[in-house]
Amino acid sequence: MHTAVQPADAKNSAAPAKAIRVAVAGATGYTGQELLRILARHPAVTIAAATSSGTTAARKLPALGHIFRGEITPLDSAALAQDADLVFLALPDKAAAELAPMLVGAGVKVIDLSGAFRLRDQALRAKWYPETHTLPDGLAYGLTELERPAVESARMVANPGCYPTATLLALRPLVSAGLIASGSDIVVDAKSGVSGAGKTPSERTHFSEVHGSVSAYGVFGHRHGAEIEQGAGREVNFVPHLMPLDRGILSTIYVRVTPGTTEESIASVYERTYAGAPFIRVVGSALPEIKHVAHTNFCDIGWRVDPSGRAVVVSVIDNLLKGASGQAVQNMNVMLGLDQATGLL
Amino acid sequence: MHTAVQPADAKNSAAPAKAIRVAVAGATGYTGQELLRILARHPAVTIAAATSSGTTAARKLPALGHIFRGEITPLDSAALAQDADLVFLALPDKAAAELAPMLVGAGVKVIDLSGAFRLRDQALRAKWYPETHTLPDGLAYGLTELERPAVESARMVANPGCYPTATLLALRPLVSAGLIASGSDIVVDAKSGVSGAGKTPSERTHFSEVHGSVSAYGVFGHRHGAEIEQGAGREVNFVPHLMPLDRGILSTIYVRVTPGTTEESIASVYERTYAGAPFIRVVGSALPEIKHVAHTNFCDIGWRVDPSGRAVVVSVIDNLLKGASGQAVQNMNVMLGLDQATGLL
Amino acid sequence: MHTAVQPADAKNSAAPAKAIRVAVAGATGYTGQELLRILARHPAVTIAAATSSGTTAARKLPALGHIFRGEITPLDSAALAQDADLVFLALPDKAAAELAPMLVGAGVKVIDLSGAFRLRDQALRAKWYPETHTLPDGLAYGLTELERPAVESARMVANPGCYPTATLLALRPLVSAGLIASGSDIVVDAKSGVSGAGKTPSERTHFSEVHGSVSAYGVFGHRHGAEIEQGAGREVNFVPHLMPLDRGILSTIYVRVTPGTTEESIASVYERTYAGAPFIRVVGSALPEIKHVAHTNFCDIGWRVDPSGRAVVVSVIDNLLKGASGQAVQNMNVMLGLDQATGLL
Amino acid sequence: MHTAVQPADAKNSAAPAKAIRVAVAGATGYTGQELLRILARHPAVTIAAATSSGTTAARKLPALGHIFRGEITPLDSAALAQDADLVFLALPDKAAAELAPMLVGAGVKVIDLSGAFRLRDQALRAKWYPETHTLPDGLAYGLTELERPAVESARMVANPGCYPTATLLALRPLVSAGLIASGSDIVVDAKSGVSGAGKTPSERTHFSEVHGSVSAYGVFGHRHGAEIEQGAGREVNFVPHLMPLDRGILSTIYVRVTPGTTEESIASVYERTYAGAPFIRVVGSALPEIKHVAHTNFCDIGWRVDPSGRAVVVSVIDNLLKGASGQAVQNMNVMLGLDQATGLL
Repeated sequence: MHTAVQPADAKNSAAPAKAIRVAVAGATGYTGQELLRILARHPAVTIAAATSSGTTAARKLPALGHIFRGEITPLDSAALAQDADLVFLALPDKAAAELAPMLVGAGVKVIDLSGAFRLRDQALRAKWYPETHTLPDGLAYGLTELERPAVESARMVANPGCYPTATLLALRPLVSAGLIASGSDIVVDAKSGVSGAGKTPSERTHFSEVHGSVSAYGVFGHRHGAEIEQGAGREVNFVPHLMPLDRGILSTIYVRVTPGTTEESIASVYERTYAGAPFIRVVGSALPEIKHVAHTNFCDIGWRVDPSGRAVVVSVIDNLLKGASGQAVQNMNVMLGLDQATGLL
Repeated sequence: MHTAVQPADAKNSAAPAKAIRVAVAGATGYTGQELLRILARHPAVTIAAATSSGTTAARKLPALGHIFRGEITPLDSAALAQDADLVFLALPDKAAAELAPMLVGAGVKVIDLSGAFRLRDQALRAKWYPETHTLPDGLAYGLTELERPAVESARMVANPGCYPTATLLALRPLVSAGLIASGSDIVVDAKSGVSGAGKTPSERTHFSEVHGSVSAYGVFGHRHGAEIEQGAGREVNFVPHLMPLDRGILSTIYVRVTPGTTEESIASVYERTYAGAPFIRVVGSALPEIKHVAHTNFCDIGWRVDPSGRAVVVSVIDNLLKGASGQAVQNMNVMLGLDQATGLL
Repeated sequence: MHTAVQPADAKNSAAPAKAIRVAVAGATGYTGQELLRILARHPAVTIAAATSSGTTAARKLPALGHIFRGEITPLDSAALAQDADLVFLALPDKAAAELAPMLVGAGVKVIDLSGAFRLRDQALRAKWYPETHTLPDGLAYGLTELERPAVESARMVANPGCYPTATLLALRPLVSAGLIASGSDIVVDAKSGVSGAGKTPSERTHFSEVHGSVSAYGVFGHRHGAEIEQGAGREVNFVPHLMPLDRGILSTIYVRVTPGTTEESIASVYERTYAGAPFIRVVGSALPEIKHVAHTNFCDIGWRVDPSGRAVVVSVIDNLLKGASGQAVQNMNVMLGLDQATGLL
Repeated sequence: MHTAVQPADAKNSAAPAKAIRVAVAGATGYTGQELLRILARHPAVTIAAATSSGTTAARKLPALGHIFRGEITPLDSAALAQDADLVFLALPDKAAAELAPMLVGAGVKVIDLSGAFRLRDQALRAKWYPETHTLPDGLAYGLTELERPAVESARMVANPGCYPTATLLALRPLVSAGLIASGSDIVVDAKSGVSGAGKTPSERTHFSEVHGSVSAYGVFGHRHGAEIEQGAGREVNFVPHLMPLDRGILSTIYVRVTPGTTEESIASVYERTYAGAPFIRVVGSALPEIKHVAHTNFCDIGWRVDPSGRAVVVSVIDNLLKGASGQAVQNMNVMLGLDQATGLL
């Protein structure tokens, strides 16, 4: 018999192993497959359903052989509501916008990996996610380390975007601590691998277009910019770039800090904010690289400050894990009262 | 005034510069763009037309700014026949199969980069290229170095496939010289970059599927296998593989050679076959690499023989140049009586 | 308190968690780091020591932050013999050849990831590994799935090379079942990522030399060829190729099979051989790709047979896991009587 | 007989073809090889010498077979001074700092691709290039498009760094036109391929360290930052990043523009500055990508402005061509009174 790993800080340590039924809606995309990979090994859950739009079948997931032994079935929202305690939505925005309220209404916990429910401001939402009409009660923004109380009691979590995750974990503690000079511009130059663009083929994701190239896109017009500004509470000049790699985001943040702010005072802020956070590695002046976090749920943060008060902060994540599926499971762990690292280290 | 480079072996050295009008049908694909890049700098030709199916416009070719200054226009076969002395077809098989006979009938020279006219055997053609009904008179198979007399007098050239080019330039001299043991299997393990699959997006060419991966495909069922067997006159076990790079093919050929065959006797065969061939570099036991030929029209060939009579031959090309557009211009040069290297070195 | 995962087939299920002390000699190379990553999460072992040659320090392993919390110390063979129950050698051949017999003599179990002890034939060993003088008693060749009885009782395991692992798991069952035609050549065209060449910088591993390129090397002269022939009991024409990716090997095997052999009969052989093997995925005519196994301990095997009796078999592994550190831990599990998959799925 | 291409704006069009003797000191590095590739096809020059430090031989340049037919010889400064009219230095800073003054003193024109003579300010030079003692008379900074008069009359050219070339071609016209707001920070987030780090193997350029990764480096401490500030005449916050590709730089520039500045007014500035410049392609709001300029001497510049006065400018070059060897030949052409594009389009 298997005995479930029982993490140190678990609140319901008496829960029977594999007792919680979870489902993944949209299981054949890149984030869906990562969810299956993590959940199949998670000691506290059983995968009750894994769905797709129907044209993709189990044989399409050869990487998951001997890991996920279930079937991919067509999406059936009524069945999801009945068979699952918690549903991950790894769907396009529109599909998520429709399905999530129904599931929440049926008493099922929901973690939505789409963008549909991330923006609280209605005007912004109308601009970037017009398919979203209302926000369900009990909705939390799932930037786990910074929103833990809300996540603990949430009925639904809007899982943050990949760029906002990488950026806000580095930026918000500095804003909160008042270390950014009041008139300072905030420039966020973000570099992402291609998997962040999803699995649907397009000229933009064609290997021959990306290999050997780098490009900026979405200048002054990427919806993750609105999400970053919401999280930072400040205007941010966010420009994403597409890099020739599969997984990973590196976010370079340029600010001016308040007089007297040093590399050490920034270190204090991060260390205080992330004391005990298993997935945040505060690395200081040894700047982090994507390779250090690829295929993990870590976010590494480093920085430099020069005597004139300019600061450069660099953060890295794996966009499919900490930037999507890993953080989604981390949120699930928190919602269920488990150790947040269960199944993720 | 510009004076055209007049190569040493040109037969019509009195021809006025830029006097020959050429057209590219299918100018926005990968091979079409390479054709434009070469032809725009070619001293003996003028680009009379560059066409596409219409949905792609000039702004889609940012890499060609300041190089090709013409317009991309919708395909108009009557105009092509009237305005061009020679037309390159960089089209899907079916479109090429329809257009080529009409152009040849109108007295226009044609160089077809599709597969539609490569196979001489009707049964094989019916299997692999059913859209091709008859072969025009004056058709040559444009493996330039080995078919030069036929190309010189051709009205139309079927430009070889990329895998057959890389493979046959290495293999056929050995067959012709009788160096391959009679009962020997011939195994061709070929590795290609992704641009060989064309520009149309698909799951198979998605960056995230190719990056960090290698795969075999088309085992016992790739039409280039038939083309290789046609060129070699022998059964060949050809297996192509997709590699995570943009451009280039490396073909590894495994044979048993006749008793007494040494690395030196193989060298003699290649050196005799390719004496004076500007684009074949016979490199011997220093095996060639794709990097040596990328962005060039070269084919490098190296080999090793062991005492028991096993031979391994390795050849490399850039699939878009020697394997497509470069060889097409080389064929044009030969058809026009120019130095075969004009515009290509 | 943590409770160790207790796998279903464990023989010493009463053993206290984390009771076994292991050490990694050579912990900062690519295979050494993978060992640390796996062992740090392994429920049955404690990392007693992780050593390096001294110039590399803990700060050199930023990817292992929050995973491996120990220190990297200089290699001290006496301390290893005293403090560890089992030592992994991730060292150069010469260092391993010297250290292994001493440790075995001291009663410590050894798993050697170098090549020093892989070849049983003394003449071959003298040629390829002249630094190895004698083979310790109790030495097993650790191709786990095919050598399990020997590994179970071994005092020391020579962990197979990456190319031999990928190749022999696919090839040996066919040889053992007598499916390969007697006169058939066996051609193994293997493609590897760069991490297989180790971490020491060289022109050959420079990014700019590898990116956008493919090359053959070691033709008729790679020591893994001897290891493959030892394992297959047949002459094999093995040619490795370097690919522009970090991790993974794809081995394409060309043979002629005996009359009557079909894809189905090959399936029977593999399924019988690997029934219950958690890390071998027999995928049949759906050929495997490196992407399916990267960052896992799986070996996927697929094949095709044509009517004339030619067979192409394709196998893939992650060279750092199933081809090195993953298989090493799998061997450790077997030596210790644990479920072979412990810590590896 | 060959007739040299005689460009339209050549000043010495009566010069005999191939009359100018050039030499490349440091011919086996990445920039040295690119120089040989260009110069071997250049209609106005003969390669009088190509030197290296001696341990690298002609066989090390397989990519240049059939292109460069000369020999690589050990560096002999006296011979260089005697046999060449113009010498390219593709050497380490220290070697260039020693050799350049001697050659200039001997009446040989010099184009130095090292950093040794780029900084005019002595204090900065003492900090970043302490091996440089004095600046020769007749020294020009070879940012061709912006420094043409100085280059025309120069006895020696300090060829700009790769990052400064990409950045200053985009930034300086805006500074000169007074479009950047006076208090605005200037942030330059630059992304480079690995060939910019040179050919010497190191852990940082190991394929497995770069593939699948992105990293920032040299924050507040890269000497190209000083060169950019010299060229811009403004403080610049420059952070370079290493990308997983071989060739190319993309520079993203963040500024605040003066009130009333629009995308159109920026267009006017660039079009006026670069009217007739063959290698600058002003692409406007269609942002450029590295793929568009790889393997060419082009610099493409695009930009966006938002209503609040934030501007993002993106420029791309091939670091080995426009960022090194291509620009060096462009400078040679200008020094010799040839069309600046000779041999480069």
